[in-house]
Amino acid sequence: MSWNTFGRVLRFTTWGESHGPALGAVLDGCPPGIALSEKDIQPFMDARRPGQSKFTTQRQEPDQVKILSGVFEGKTTGTPISLMIENVDQRSKDYSEVAKAYRPGHADYSYDQKYGFRDYRGGGRSSARETAARVAAGAVARLIIPEVKITAYVCEIGGDSIDREAMNLAEIGNNPFFCPDTWAAQRWEKLVDEARKAGSSLGAVVECVAEGVPVGWGAPVYAKLDADIAAGMMGINATKGVEIGDGFGAARLSGEENADRMRPAENGSNEGSPQFLANHAGGTAGGISTGQPVVCRVAFKPTSSILTPVETIDNEGNATEIRTKGRHDPCVGIRGAPVVEAMMALVLADHKLLDRAQFGNR
Amino acid sequence: MSWNTFGRVLRFTTWGESHGPALGAVLDGCPPGIALSEKDIQPFMDARRPGQSKFTTQRQEPDQVKILSGVFEGKTTGTPISLMIENVDQRSKDYSEVAKAYRPGHADYSYDQKYGFRDYRGGGRSSARETAARVAAGAVARLIIPEVKITAYVCEIGGDSIDREAMNLAEIGNNPFFCPDTWAAQRWEKLVDEARKAGSSLGAVVECVAEGVPVGWGAPVYAKLDADIAAGMMGINATKGVEIGDGFGAARLSGEENADRMRPAENGSNEGSPQFLANHAGGTAGGISTGQPVVCRVAFKPTSSILTPVETIDNEGNATEIRTKGRHDPCVGIRGAPVVEAMMALVLADHKLLDRAQFGNR
Amino acid sequence: MSWNTFGRVLRFTTWGESHGPALGAVLDGCPPGIALSEKDIQPFMDARRPGQSKFTTQRQEPDQVKILSGVFEGKTTGTPISLMIENVDQRSKDYSEVAKAYRPGHADYSYDQKYGFRDYRGGGRSSARETAARVAAGAVARLIIPEVKITAYVCEIGGDSIDREAMNLAEIGNNPFFCPDTWAAQRWEKLVDEARKAGSSLGAVVECVAEGVPVGWGAPVYAKLDADIAAGMMGINATKGVEIGDGFGAARLSGEENADRMRPAENGSNEGSPQFLANHAGGTAGGISTGQPVVCRVAFKPTSSILTPVETIDNEGNATEIRTKGRHDPCVGIRGAPVVEAMMALVLADHKLLDRAQFGNR
Amino acid sequence: MSWNTFGRVLRFTTWGESHGPALGAVLDGCPPGIALSEKDIQPFMDARRPGQSKFTTQRQEPDQVKILSGVFEGKTTGTPISLMIENVDQRSKDYSEVAKAYRPGHADYSYDQKYGFRDYRGGGRSSARETAARVAAGAVARLIIPEVKITAYVCEIGGDSIDREAMNLAEIGNNPFFCPDTWAAQRWEKLVDEARKAGSSLGAVVECVAEGVPVGWGAPVYAKLDADIAAGMMGINATKGVEIGDGFGAARLSGEENADRMRPAENGSNEGSPQFLANHAGGTAGGISTGQPVVCRVAFKPTSSILTPVETIDNEGNATEIRTKGRHDPCVGIRGAPVVEAMMALVLADHKLLDRAQFGNR
Repeated sequence: MSWNTFGRVLRFTTWGESHGPALGAVLDGCPPGIALSEKDIQPFMDARRPGQSKFTTQRQEPDQVKILSGVFEGKTTGTPISLMIENVDQRSKDYSEVAKAYRPGHADYSYDQKYGFRDYRGGGRSSARETAARVAAGAVARLIIPEVKITAYVCEIGGDSIDREAMNLAEIGNNPFFCPDTWAAQRWEKLVDEARKAGSSLGAVVECVAEGVPVGWGAPVYAKLDADIAAGMMGINATKGVEIGDGFGAARLSGEENADRMRPAENGSNEGSPQFLANHAGGTAGGISTGQPVVCRVAFKPTSSILTPVETIDNEGNATEIRTKGRHDPCVGIRGAPVVEAMMALVLADHKLLDRAQFGNR
Repeated sequence: MSWNTFGRVLRFTTWGESHGPALGAVLDGCPPGIALSEKDIQPFMDARRPGQSKFTTQRQEPDQVKILSGVFEGKTTGTPISLMIENVDQRSKDYSEVAKAYRPGHADYSYDQKYGFRDYRGGGRSSARETAARVAAGAVARLIIPEVKITAYVCEIGGDSIDREAMNLAEIGNNPFFCPDTWAAQRWEKLVDEARKAGSSLGAVVECVAEGVPVGWGAPVYAKLDADIAAGMMGINATKGVEIGDGFGAARLSGEENADRMRPAENGSNEGSPQFLANHAGGTAGGISTGQPVVCRVAFKPTSSILTPVETIDNEGNATEIRTKGRHDPCVGIRGAPVVEAMMALVLADHKLLDRAQFGNR
Repeated sequence: MSWNTFGRVLRFTTWGESHGPALGAVLDGCPPGIALSEKDIQPFMDARRPGQSKFTTQRQEPDQVKILSGVFEGKTTGTPISLMIENVDQRSKDYSEVAKAYRPGHADYSYDQKYGFRDYRGGGRSSARETAARVAAGAVARLIIPEVKITAYVCEIGGDSIDREAMNLAEIGNNPFFCPDTWAAQRWEKLVDEARKAGSSLGAVVECVAEGVPVGWGAPVYAKLDADIAAGMMGINATKGVEIGDGFGAARLSGEENADRMRPAENGSNEGSPQFLANHAGGTAGGISTGQPVVCRVAFKPTSSILTPVETIDNEGNATEIRTKGRHDPCVGIRGAPVVEAMMALVLADHKLLDRAQFGNR
Repeated sequence: MSWNTFGRVLRFTTWGESHGPALGAVLDGCPPGIALSEKDIQPFMDARRPGQSKFTTQRQEPDQVKILSGVFEGKTTGTPISLMIENVDQRSKDYSEVAKAYRPGHADYSYDQKYGFRDYRGGGRSSARETAARVAAGAVARLIIPEVKITAYVCEIGGDSIDREAMNLAEIGNNPFFCPDTWAAQRWEKLVDEARKAGSSLGAVVECVAEGVPVGWGAPVYAKLDADIAAGMMGINATKGVEIGDGFGAARLSGEENADRMRPAENGSNEGSPQFLANHAGGTAGGISTGQPVVCRVAFKPTSSILTPVETIDNEGNATEIRTKGRHDPCVGIRGAPVVEAMMALVLADHKLLDRAQFGNR
């Protein structure tokens, strides 16, 4: 079943295909009275925007967002906010090869089998271009949670990880990889360039930290904060894994090692937030935020579109092989960082409102 | 916000606390005419049931399920199926210590901060006992998808993995660890026993394979089959990570390595399902099943309840330490295997019905 | 599709059949810290309870509610509240006639066609006994909105209306008809008794007034307060119409007549709530409460179970006729009054929480 | 809470204000492979379109629908269909009066109190212009249920009803009132014109009949077909009442009168659909369609915007009076007919898919 809405009380619905006239998001449930204009959204669009370095697809899309509803005299009205992004650079290339044969790793085969046919132009609805609409919605969600600071960065490309000691969040904007470690960024430049030139592609891991989330957001059972984060992240194109806190690493710790020991508030008084001596849990316990930074990691597979020919079948079931020409990201995970930030913002804003529904203001 | 319902058209709601009179699930949306009695559910309850070996909690619960509605003359009627499990062995122990101080790793602190107070008896609603209700609902979900065979097993405890070469699914029921590798099971016996005696605990990884899922279940964007699996698994107590297919490993592969190459159907004709030469994707592409086995892995942290004292604060903010006495699983991930199976069944059955809504019978 | 959940953030799910072992409701989303015991619920159960006069069915059900979860030390915990009512007086009568032929006006034919078969004992899931679960959930909902006073009463039976001039809400509990007009109650005694003796049945109209609803609950478009009330009321068994405020009468007024003119607050100051000179709107404008009493009316058809034989077909399509023996309400609308109150409470409590989600405390 | 989505598996979300750049709907869950172009939608837009006679508002809006997504090579793809209608004739009139004072009957006061401010231009989000988006979505929904024929018509204006004997559905398109009785249409011409000239307004009742709905759509409890119709209709602007079948009239019938007696199929055989000797129920029993025509009636209040001055208060609480200048429908119920049709189509298409989810093809 087509299901293009995410969220519980702050809900957004996206629409649009890679090669249609436009794509967009409708964000519903936003509180009224929040100052909002296109200028609040555009910087996040620009961060995700393709064509800005040789390490991303060369498709040139300005990704200008238009606000079509929900704002009056510069403020949100509490009614649905319709955000539209026109597609500009839908190159009229020949898609006959993609139309006829299935690209392994892509949704081509599963789509054709499910729907009976598909919009093969640039992946249609399954294109990562859909994530532009999430980034737009996420930019609005951030304004609902000004107390929270969300930062995502690439912490691993092609198996090469950043050095946690050398990490400096201020560096993220200074390289084309959203990388907080300048040395890693330099290595990745060579790594990604080689993959690109070889007609290959690389996977990546994106880490996201949300600071300032107060204790108490989330729910104990099926709308656990971490479960909603997992759903949000695993819904991003090309993702194959999600970890909260230590993630799979936690499975290798003993109970004593994994315990986030607690001490009284820093000022020594028993007022205020306690100190945690570690954050193995990644900021949630029992599905509810603890007041520590919320931390998740998301695995992106290597871009499935590669120039190297791979064996496949055509849509009549005959053996063939396919090379995916066209403009592609050699490492789709890089541009995943702004999308991960957006999904984190959308989940957290939803949970802020859910918490307020049950408890009122804190 | 409390949110105790999961699913889109096949929806289930669970209720109940560790130390209340009972717990249960209401499963709504089940097709009518399916033969169902308590006997179809009980074997799955028994697999999850505590107290069966020294490697799980010694709490003795028969976990007898009663069907209170939705079945008439031995068949489901299409109306809600109410499943109830009475709590029997709620030992009247002294919970005053847990009531007053926060157990690190547990939901104690986040709960108290969110709700203002909590049912501290055995974890209340955040107890893993809630998963008994999921297993009951999952047993019914299996009957909706008889074409699918779901098998979950523990593939790693305390960092010690099974040997993939020695794997034999027939062994799963022959050891107390749901372990498909007899040698690993022998090593784990020692490993878990040592942890138990040391008052410590261990984490685990559970892998789940669903065979027989036809091509076409799932959705392209926010109800991706893998995203719903991620949400379902990350909603299980003590989970910290979810992988689909190669998961984080996929992020270290090149595009060529990660491609699940396709060949015509085995009989050499172009009729029938194609062959895939690999299953890095774990049975989904673009959020939609490919017809290959659906594979996921779930990381369980070590049990937070340990006998070793750990630093913490009391509910007035003062420094203290706590040892969690009582009956606990030294490795909560072991009994996670039947719960992972149940969630997989519930997600898949929901998507079968969703697919049918949009397309009719296949 | 089976769909047994109602509400947006305060959600309840009911289960159970007329002749099963029990029925119940799971109420999710209730704020924590509200004092709650069975005693808060029982009076509302008793009001709806059958067998209390010759004007209702003679089935004897104590309708004792048990709280199975969600309450700890006398207060709601914020987790799901499971409410169970055991069926006691399921008379082992012969249902072979109902099993074989379709009772006109009942769900027999539509059920059999939809589900392929049905639980014919007392109507199964389509029995008005399901409303006991709503009344239980509604009793809890009332505690979430202590600022609101909800009163439902029967204002018409068999076309005989109350006299608005003679109306006295204090009289509602003094007659078996929830009637606020003692003269009407006297007339109805004769009317309903005659119908009962003649093996016939009567319809009724129930009016419900909710006082104390603050201005601002509701939503502008698809979760209009009045639309949710309409959905809630039209989901009660045997209802055929819903009006808000003047309802169909409003369609016969001119714009000037229908305008609820506004004047400054009574104290003459421009502080505080304005005065409305009328309430044709029934307390909502644009889907949002105005601060005036919320007023709706619900039409109940005559009980479909009658002793008079009516033409019908059997489940093989042959002509036959049927008399519905057994224990039935001669006017099912009478016992509709407590159910209408419950649904009003559930809708209003949901909207209080929804409003709080978007705006925080007022 | 803002809630701008309607439906269960076929879901649509609308956005946009009366005086913003555009408005639209995103329809999600539509089956793939249905032929769809703007030409399939436009006739329904034209039926609702303002400015076509002196009996509706003089605002001139072409209401040209653009399909922005979800269609490929002339067929629906199964992904969200984004429909946009640009606002053209947003007259730059002076709204200072409406901005400062509350129009009785409008959402002005309740909005300001809920949201703290409002888009006062033409009613903003609470404008009946929002219904253009529903009509567009409804036109697509019709294509999902080709077996059903939906016809809505005005059956009463200002208390003057059509003559059921003189009813001829072929006449609906031949007069500006969607009236199936030519004599009534002539009387209404005078009636509405007088109201318009007098600066007054009139209410109306719209009746809607859906023929061809098969037996078995709907659900027994909270997603009753009639409850969803009630919710859909009561969510249309200016509606105050909904009836199914005989509605409030049923409350005045005896059980024998109200029974829709059944006879074997017309051909005398016991194959095929039975005959019903009446349709008091309006095509539903127990929330499930019976195979008879589904019939509902919707009450529209008189347009609240009238030229006659009415007492009110300004937004500082002071007494004032207001005349609503501008372009308004003297009887908003007239243009309600195409909107009622659209909502009926959307509810029925949703239930067709829901039924298919639980049962597969019939």
